Amino acid sequence: TRDTEDTKGDREKHVKTTLRELVVYFVFLIILCVLTFGMTSTTMYYYTKVMSELFLDAQFPDTKNTFRGMTTMMDFWRFVETPLMDGLYWETWYNDRNVTDSELGYIFYENKLLGIPRLRQLKVLNNSCVVHDDFKKDITQCYDNYAESIEDKNPFGKMNGSAWTYNTEAELDGSSHAGLIETYGGGGYIANLARKKAESLEILKELRENLWLDRGTRAVFIDFTVYNANINLFCVVRLVVEFPPTGGAIPQSSFRTVKLIRYVSVSDFFVLACECIFALFILYYSVEEIIEIKRHRLAYFKKVWNILDILVILISIVCIAFNVYRTIAVGDMLSTLLDTPDKFPDFEFLSYWQVQFNSAVAIAVFLAWIKVFKYISFNKTMTQLSSTLARCSKDLAGFAIMFFIIFLAFAQLGYLIFGTQVRDFSTFGNAIFTLFRIILGDFNFHELENAHRVLGPTYFILYVFFVFFVLLNMFLAIINDTYSEVKADIANQKNEFEMGDYFKRGYDK
Amino acid sequence: TRDTEDTKGDREKHVKTTLRELVVYFVFLIILCVLTFGMTSTTMYYYTKVMSELFLDAQFPDTKNTFRGMTTMMDFWRFVETPLMDGLYWETWYNDRNVTDSELGYIFYENKLLGIPRLRQLKVLNNSCVVHDDFKKDITQCYDNYAESIEDKNPFGKMNGSAWTYNTEAELDGSSHAGLIETYGGGGYIANLARKKAESLEILKELRENLWLDRGTRAVFIDFTVYNANINLFCVVRLVVEFPPTGGAIPQSSFRTVKLIRYVSVSDFFVLACECIFALFILYYSVEEIIEIKRHRLAYFKKVWNILDILVILISIVCIAFNVYRTIAVGDMLSTLLDTPDKFPDFEFLSYWQVQFNSAVAIAVFLAWIKVFKYISFNKTMTQLSSTLARCSKDLAGFAIMFFIIFLAFAQLGYLIFGTQVRDFSTFGNAIFTLFRIILGDFNFHELENAHRVLGPTYFILYVFFVFFVLLNMFLAIINDTYSEVKADIANQKNEFEMGDYFKRGYDK
Amino acid sequence: TRDTEDTKGDREKHVKTTLRELVVYFVFLIILCVLTFGMTSTTMYYYTKVMSELFLDAQFPDTKNTFRGMTTMMDFWRFVETPLMDGLYWETWYNDRNVTDSELGYIFYENKLLGIPRLRQLKVLNNSCVVHDDFKKDITQCYDNYAESIEDKNPFGKMNGSAWTYNTEAELDGSSHAGLIETYGGGGYIANLARKKAESLEILKELRENLWLDRGTRAVFIDFTVYNANINLFCVVRLVVEFPPTGGAIPQSSFRTVKLIRYVSVSDFFVLACECIFALFILYYSVEEIIEIKRHRLAYFKKVWNILDILVILISIVCIAFNVYRTIAVGDMLSTLLDTPDKFPDFEFLSYWQVQFNSAVAIAVFLAWIKVFKYISFNKTMTQLSSTLARCSKDLAGFAIMFFIIFLAFAQLGYLIFGTQVRDFSTFGNAIFTLFRIILGDFNFHELENAHRVLGPTYFILYVFFVFFVLLNMFLAIINDTYSEVKADIANQKNEFEMGDYFKRGYDK
Amino acid sequence: TRDTEDTKGDREKHVKTTLRELVVYFVFLIILCVLTFGMTSTTMYYYTKVMSELFLDAQFPDTKNTFRGMTTMMDFWRFVETPLMDGLYWETWYNDRNVTDSELGYIFYENKLLGIPRLRQLKVLNNSCVVHDDFKKDITQCYDNYAESIEDKNPFGKMNGSAWTYNTEAELDGSSHAGLIETYGGGGYIANLARKKAESLEILKELRENLWLDRGTRAVFIDFTVYNANINLFCVVRLVVEFPPTGGAIPQSSFRTVKLIRYVSVSDFFVLACECIFALFILYYSVEEIIEIKRHRLAYFKKVWNILDILVILISIVCIAFNVYRTIAVGDMLSTLLDTPDKFPDFEFLSYWQVQFNSAVAIAVFLAWIKVFKYISFNKTMTQLSSTLARCSKDLAGFAIMFFIIFLAFAQLGYLIFGTQVRDFSTFGNAIFTLFRIILGDFNFHELENAHRVLGPTYFILYVFFVFFVLLNMFLAIINDTYSEVKADIANQKNEFEMGDYFKRGYDK
Ligand SMILES: [Ca+2]
Repeated sequence: TRDTEDTKGDREKHVKTTLRELVVYFVFLIILCVLTFGMTSTTMYYYTKVMSELFLDAQFPDTKNTFRGMTTMMDFWRFVETPLMDGLYWETWYNDRNVTDSELGYIFYENKLLGIPRLRQLKVLNNSCVVHDDFKKDITQCYDNYAESIEDKNPFGKMNGSAWTYNTEAELDGSSHAGLIETYGGGGYIANLARKKAESLEILKELRENLWLDRGTRAVFIDFTVYNANINLFCVVRLVVEFPPTGGAIPQSSFRTVKLIRYVSVSDFFVLACECIFALFILYYSVEEIIEIKRHRLAYFKKVWNILDILVILISIVCIAFNVYRTIAVGDMLSTLLDTPDKFPDFEFLSYWQVQFNSAVAIAVFLAWIKVFKYISFNKTMTQLSSTLARCSKDLAGFAIMFFIIFLAFAQLGYLIFGTQVRDFSTFGNAIFTLFRIILGDFNFHELENAHRVLGPTYFILYVFFVFFVLLNMFLAIINDTYSEVKADIANQKNEFEMGDYFKRGYDK
Repeated sequence: TRDTEDTKGDREKHVKTTLRELVVYFVFLIILCVLTFGMTSTTMYYYTKVMSELFLDAQFPDTKNTFRGMTTMMDFWRFVETPLMDGLYWETWYNDRNVTDSELGYIFYENKLLGIPRLRQLKVLNNSCVVHDDFKKDITQCYDNYAESIEDKNPFGKMNGSAWTYNTEAELDGSSHAGLIETYGGGGYIANLARKKAESLEILKELRENLWLDRGTRAVFIDFTVYNANINLFCVVRLVVEFPPTGGAIPQSSFRTVKLIRYVSVSDFFVLACECIFALFILYYSVEEIIEIKRHRLAYFKKVWNILDILVILISIVCIAFNVYRTIAVGDMLSTLLDTPDKFPDFEFLSYWQVQFNSAVAIAVFLAWIKVFKYISFNKTMTQLSSTLARCSKDLAGFAIMFFIIFLAFAQLGYLIFGTQVRDFSTFGNAIFTLFRIILGDFNFHELENAHRVLGPTYFILYVFFVFFVLLNMFLAIINDTYSEVKADIANQKNEFEMGDYFKRGYDK
Repeated sequence: TRDTEDTKGDREKHVKTTLRELVVYFVFLIILCVLTFGMTSTTMYYYTKVMSELFLDAQFPDTKNTFRGMTTMMDFWRFVETPLMDGLYWETWYNDRNVTDSELGYIFYENKLLGIPRLRQLKVLNNSCVVHDDFKKDITQCYDNYAESIEDKNPFGKMNGSAWTYNTEAELDGSSHAGLIETYGGGGYIANLARKKAESLEILKELRENLWLDRGTRAVFIDFTVYNANINLFCVVRLVVEFPPTGGAIPQSSFRTVKLIRYVSVSDFFVLACECIFALFILYYSVEEIIEIKRHRLAYFKKVWNILDILVILISIVCIAFNVYRTIAVGDMLSTLLDTPDKFPDFEFLSYWQVQFNSAVAIAVFLAWIKVFKYISFNKTMTQLSSTLARCSKDLAGFAIMFFIIFLAFAQLGYLIFGTQVRDFSTFGNAIFTLFRIILGDFNFHELENAHRVLGPTYFILYVFFVFFVLLNMFLAIINDTYSEVKADIANQKNEFEMGDYFKRGYDK
Repeated sequence: TRDTEDTKGDREKHVKTTLRELVVYFVFLIILCVLTFGMTSTTMYYYTKVMSELFLDAQFPDTKNTFRGMTTMMDFWRFVETPLMDGLYWETWYNDRNVTDSELGYIFYENKLLGIPRLRQLKVLNNSCVVHDDFKKDITQCYDNYAESIEDKNPFGKMNGSAWTYNTEAELDGSSHAGLIETYGGGGYIANLARKKAESLEILKELRENLWLDRGTRAVFIDFTVYNANINLFCVVRLVVEFPPTGGAIPQSSFRTVKLIRYVSVSDFFVLACECIFALFILYYSVEEIIEIKRHRLAYFKKVWNILDILVILISIVCIAFNVYRTIAVGDMLSTLLDTPDKFPDFEFLSYWQVQFNSAVAIAVFLAWIKVFKYISFNKTMTQLSSTLARCSKDLAGFAIMFFIIFLAFAQLGYLIFGTQVRDFSTFGNAIFTLFRIILGDFNFHELENAHRVLGPTYFILYVFFVFFVLLNMFLAIINDTYSEVKADIANQKNEFEMGDYFKRGYDK
């Protein structure tokens, strides 16, 4: 953005311009930080923690297992019948007195359960896969991994009600969900629970008796949303149990604590004011960048700082748009919900995008901070460091290619050899992360050894030797050597006029 | 302090002066170490360990949960009714024989329970927060996060006695406490337990039956102090359970093992003697520094060593003063306490400051050790190292600024993205510590991955790449390059007269 | 392989040849990767996980211990009578309804139990070791560590049936197994279980009543194989409990998830096509290499790249051969098995070699990736890096010898001092791995300290100081210094014609 | 030892001499390794593991606690009455049949319990410490930390029998034991158990009923020894429970698996042969070194290699002597023991020294391996490395002093601030080890944070910054710089005649 003005005049004017720009930028940065620090708070962490512990760590009465440790279909029923019911319905105080009617429907006596919880099941068709000829006589049923194309949409069991007949994604206004094994569609067989514990238990009993879950079941979703008025936060809970074609059960959970109603308290309105100022800033910067693009055309896009500017502006515009949309959408949902308290309210979509919105804002702030380096070239040291990085970037890039070919070759080797046994190598992505973690010293050697008594340790030692001992040190050698060069160069050349000098001179006067 | 004498004379005199100073300084250092090694002992660690295990790791009879794992209000009652009672009252021996009357009131049969334990509760007012208009019809009660301004001071429940009516901080002579979530005031509703188990259980039953804890409750404190005469140590115990507005319960505990009565055994009186000598030393050094300040004025404060001197002296003086005050205050408290054994004795304040006193002394010793480097410039190697540090300090500082901007940008990014899900990023401070720990290899990658399947690993890999691979290596490059320069310089210049030579010459004679 | 054509012509022709070669090689690499990515999948990991959790983590009803934590003979019976039976036989649904007859015999209702499970026991002879004279009167029985030469082959107990009389390795068509303590032969006393739970329990009861396991028992193997038609995978399970001569029990397990039937679904036939192309490639490369060997004779074997070529080709040929054999062998086994469902089917041998086959393919791919570096010398950076590695390889090798002598001396020291107490030093191999892991920061200091209060910490600190501080830094110094040299050299010499230039020129035209 | 011959002749002769010496040395080294590899074995590790799991991990029936988690006197009785009795007495098989009489007295049916187990208690006198005047009225009893001078030697309880009257260290032929808190004398009140479970339970019941343990009790030792004839190993077990004056119980255990009877099997006699050859070698080297000392006098002790030689020889002589003594002593003990099976046999002393003997041998081997470097100066690389180490040793030493002053200052600071709360800082030694471990990334940050919310993280970050970032990098700078210098020097100077050349020349001929 410094380029918008013609700075061919004397250096002093240039410095003054830069300074003014810098001050404006810092105001922008402060506004941005104020916005974000209202976005996340320790209370939100505690809310997530308290809610997730309630459902995930409560023990089943007989086996002392928990949701996290669930491994069979039987465990699913154990979970829904005790920890889930106890977690959802708080109908007595600790002295065994019943709560009053107005106190009913609050988890922990504090968090209003919005509408009712819902169970949703997805199934695949029988004979969705090919059985080998030799086994065809013995094995007459075959249920493949989940895929939308082979989803079972036929009624089953009691053949009536939404629990036993298929509901399409459109009917449910649902969205797809990326599980650990597959991505699941938004339709399915749904069973709505009730607002009282006894009624819900009745519903669950019927499902269990009539084998609601069977061999075709590939996933069950438990969805509900709570709202805490004390701290004005929603917690959108989704408990998923996947039943892979291998048998067994794989639990997964998401607790999204989001502030869907933004403007309630006084401090919220202060944030609103900041948001307006922020929008103005974005407008200002957008105009500036558009002018620059017009002037410099393609040359504009060759500078890294400009790309950064554009990224920040784009993200900001998207976020502002979403913010407006969210405010309207939540208002609509809430009025519907409060009118029909016995319906399941789907906050999944909204909470998902709210989380993405938060992430986008966070990334924008990060980029804005990085841009600070554009202005910091105050003194020789900074120049040295940035020149070093700039000069060795070509060498580092060449080295990085070499490094990553070896790294990926190791990752593929690890995935192929240990993938069926060790969690940390169970996907190609995991293998990459694991190799990164080994460099830092965070890994489980014994699992590797158990997976293959000879190749495990050999693989580990070869990797540590080549990557940790040799390649990483070469990284260092490149930086080290370049730094010496740069330092020697700078010592030889005359100092340019620097901003540091400007301040110093001002001070000396 | 070397500057107090005019060292314009010949070098030999200078060395002699330095040597004398050095010897005096080492005597001072030894005295200081003697003092501190009496301050902490392994017995104190075991005392803390034994007491904390007794209360924190004892299982509730039904759920097998412990104080550390407490998550609900119900758990609080489970804790106070069994593990707390069993821990406080040891009324039978292991062969089920009752203890004699004189043996009553000792935890582990060894640790005298001073006075009686006390429960204290803090509440917030109903409607202390704003409920959004849409919910106002449904949600009629609202209890905000704790803040002193919205503290509930009205009587409730049985409306009589200190447990149901508010006691101010002044009445209780209490002090505020920094919990995990908020900082709590020193007042509240207090319930004193009794000196016998049966009576205490009776008191607890009444509290439970009448719903002593309700939605407004934000924290409960359990306070008591024990004294072990065998080893002359107090253990001031405070168990805090915070009830955040999210619901749930967050336990916290502090076991302060302090030596409040200092002078009992023979070795204690030896320490007393050392303390007197130490006070004289401080007096001597204070005078010296004052003289120097008078002579050099502002120039005095430009030397790092002088700042260090002043710091050590100031800390020492504060500590000596506190030591005198503590001795008097404890004497007073004890006599009151032994006269009225049925009162709750508040050692909180005293033990808190005793711990700060210990820390202050520890820091003084640390600074005193660092000052040793002032005298160690014996030989070329040392000079090389210190020159290297001195010369690259400017570059390092410049680099450190750059490093910390990137570091803090990463910390903020992590806090904003993962803050609601991952404990290690739940506050901005935690995020900073976590990023430091990642460099050393101590972190939980899977939590990050669970929090966000894409951004988690990406964040991790970017951080490791830029900070661990690139920036840390640049650190090294700076030091490495400077060291080479310094070594070359020193090799070229003539050796100054050094202290090492002085010794050598003496030896050669 | 570049050498097969006479490249004495002009450089441009050379580059064209190289480029053609490169393209062919990349096609080969892609084919190879396609083959392997079909080989491992996340489903296989989940299959292993689900099956191993079912048997290894199920708790014994009384002691809440698991297979993994097994320590006594009594635990073995606890395991086989509850978790094993519950894991093998799924005869009711979660609503307590019995499964239909066609649903019988499926673990998790999904995984067909092939044939029947088998228990196999190995014993050693009484008086297989020498008792010291002093004890001969008191100690009349003596059972040594397992060795095939002292195996007990006499009938015992009820003296009839395969469970009480010895079956040779040839009779059982078995193979030896490398346990944690010893390698065990393929014969033994075998007890086949039944296809129904009740019958199997009867068999186990008889074994237990008649003391099937006694002091001579050295290992018990539980073998069975399941087949999942949904995903067309076999899981070959072997649970081993070793009873060392020390008393106690050491559990071990292997769950080999293998795809023994290769060509069933459409994607399988795509892989088959790739395999054929791959075979053609191998043929082509074989011929090429044979021609080269004939031309260059011994000189051929002096180039590293040629050795790599030969390795890849040899491994590939072995793998192709095994692939053909496996397809035939599995066909045979399955037809026998389906005819006689009450026999134990031994997939041990096949699954073992299938795993080795997978590993061999994985290594071939790894080597093929490494060969990519032969072609990558595009630009100056790459040349710098490879020259650095090449030039410092002699120094690094010299250093590595020095490093490993010290390293091994430390490993032996650790093994001798801590070997009897600490698992991580219990064998010489483990000691080596542990020392590697200490460098990365993954180790258990407290175990070392417990093993020997003085030598443990001393050993640790000496090791960290010499190996982590001094030797590793020397590693770096070598690479760093060589890199500076190489960079200086390259800067001085004229650039040779490089492939990068070729591309650039083409681009410039 | 090369110095024993006058090598002023031509270089070739020198090389020949060196070669001969080298060959002899390698024979010596091989003999030494053979000896030691017989000393430790994986079987010994499993023996330790199996025995320690039996006693330390067995759960108490009611609280599910274990020996390792013991915290109160009550836990001690829970332990001895169930896990200890079940571990010591195996009187039935797993089918509930009683074992035969000749099978009685074997742990795991395999390990002969030698003689009977023994409980030993140490007490301190009442009023062994000073109670502060203020408390004197209330606190009438006072039991200090254990010290031999204040040991209680008066009869108590039932006043008769060895359990209630004091037995001196001389009477028991005992030795002192270094516990976690104090070092305990060898005397005490002893209760011998019986050879049958029922009788032992009777004895324990009497002890419990009569309050054998009281406030004066400072430690209880449970001692017994088992012998496994299968593998000819003794396991000397000592379980210690310390009762500190703070209350509570601190468990500790030692399982010493030792081979006290050395020469039984054939391979043992092969080792015996090696031992004889070894003794001859030591004789030869001793004579050689004595001759050298006579010739060179004080100059001899200035060479590092000579010091190493002497160390190895001295350790070897001590070990040989102990080996002879042990063989005799064990023979004596065993004959006594087998005559009087109802006595407690004290293998404590013998097993302790056997472990020290093993450690001494291990250290001798380590030193012998290090001496290999004396002979390895084959080629330029090695010379470079050793010169680098030699040349920078002075700088490194200077740096190490600086490093360790800062390091120790940090350790003391950590000990004083966190010592009462955090186990890893509970002693000054632990603090040092912990700081070392932090460098490698193995530490518990959260404990530090809990101990002091401000100082904990500050301390951690300061330490990491100064020691990990700055000081460690300076280490590297020193080595790096010296290596460059050395390499430059060597490149300039002519090669001396080297051993590598000798071989090369021989090969060229
Ligand atoms: Ca690490």
